[in-house]
Amino acid sequence: MRATVQTKEIRDAILDATDKLLAKYGYQKMTIDDLAAEVGIGKGSIYLHFKSKEEIALSHVDRIVDRLCARLETTAASDLAPDAKLRQMALERVSYRFKSVQHYSQSINELLSSLRAKLLARRREHHAREAAIFARVITEGQKKNLFINGKPTQTANAFITATNALLPFGLSTKELGERKEIENKALTVVNILLRGITYHKEQS
Amino acid sequence: MRATVQTKEIRDAILDATDKLLAKYGYQKMTIDDLAAEVGIGKGSIYLHFKSKEEIALSHVDRIVDRLCARLETTAASDLAPDAKLRQMALERVSYRFKSVQHYSQSINELLSSLRAKLLARRREHHAREAAIFARVITEGQKKNLFINGKPTQTANAFITATNALLPFGLSTKELGERKEIENKALTVVNILLRGITYHKEQS
Repeated sequence: MRATVQTKEIRDAILDATDKLLAKYGYQKMTIDDLAAEVGIGKGSIYLHFKSKEEIALSHVDRIVDRLCARLETTAASDLAPDAKLRQMALERVSYRFKSVQHYSQSINELLSSLRAKLLARRREHHAREAAIFARVITEGQKKNLFINGKPTQTANAFITATNALLPFGLSTKELGERKEIENKALTVVNILLRGITYHKEQS
Repeated sequence: MRATVQTKEIRDAILDATDKLLAKYGYQKMTIDDLAAEVGIGKGSIYLHFKSKEEIALSHVDRIVDRLCARLETTAASDLAPDAKLRQMALERVSYRFKSVQHYSQSINELLSSLRAKLLARRREHHAREAAIFARVITEGQKKNLFINGKPTQTANAFITATNALLPFGLSTKELGERKEIENKALTVVNILLRGITYHKEQS
């Protein structure tokens, strides 16, 4: 048990250092030696936890998604109405990811170029995890006769797809400086989607 | 006049060769010498039209967008109802871009990684051109009392944003092999958006 806690602590410390050094040096220039020095452990200890620099950077993105999913779960379990939950969750996935990389928006292109193929493959799993949380709220809204019928997973995937272009992967360095504008774009898309799944009682 | 026509013909021939060689070699390995040989002109003639290999590749993407916009204009000017036009246009932007790169889906990651920053900067202008065509159809639908009121440009941008993640830039090599699946995703998003902007007469 203690060993597991330590493993998680060291992993987290390595990923915290990664976050800091990505901002400072960028992905290409960051070395395992830099990371070891930043954490205050030996280079060999890093390799006990991660196979390569690439795996560290990908795990760093995974951790952002883990934390985002924890937030989405909190919103999904809150007392808000289902439509308010979906709105907040969709905005959260955009603004949380945005904030996660904003301190290294200058070097992020280099990271996302270098890892493009692997990140795209990984995104599929990330998005499926998020979609599962959205689908539960959509089911809740359907049960309350707020949302029209339809496969909750398919609708959830539509919310994910429709906001995916607003995640850092799809944004230029310039756009990564325009938080308010990106959040407004997300809000417009999400409001149209929400109206699109809302049951209008008076409708024939 | 004749000179201008020739210029356009040679430019087009160079971009046709680019399309072919991107599929054959990929972006990194493709050289200006290869392109000159493929077109059957001297290397110097290529540089009369383009400053660099990078500019050639970006112009190649511009040409795809030019051709897409011509198709969108045709649909926008057709006899279809405004909602049917928007549906077809949104699907067209996904499937046309998809088909444009499908013959080099294996090497596209390398192209998109190499040009990531410049492409992202360029996308803004591409998307604004497309959004202008969507906005006209939305205005048409509002005048016919089919669509709810709202700023046509903002709604148009929402259609663009919501389908952007389904363009080749946001797809993995694996997903670039799944045309039907990508088109279905686009259709789900677009149908929800369309319902979201449609005026329901019976609604209070």
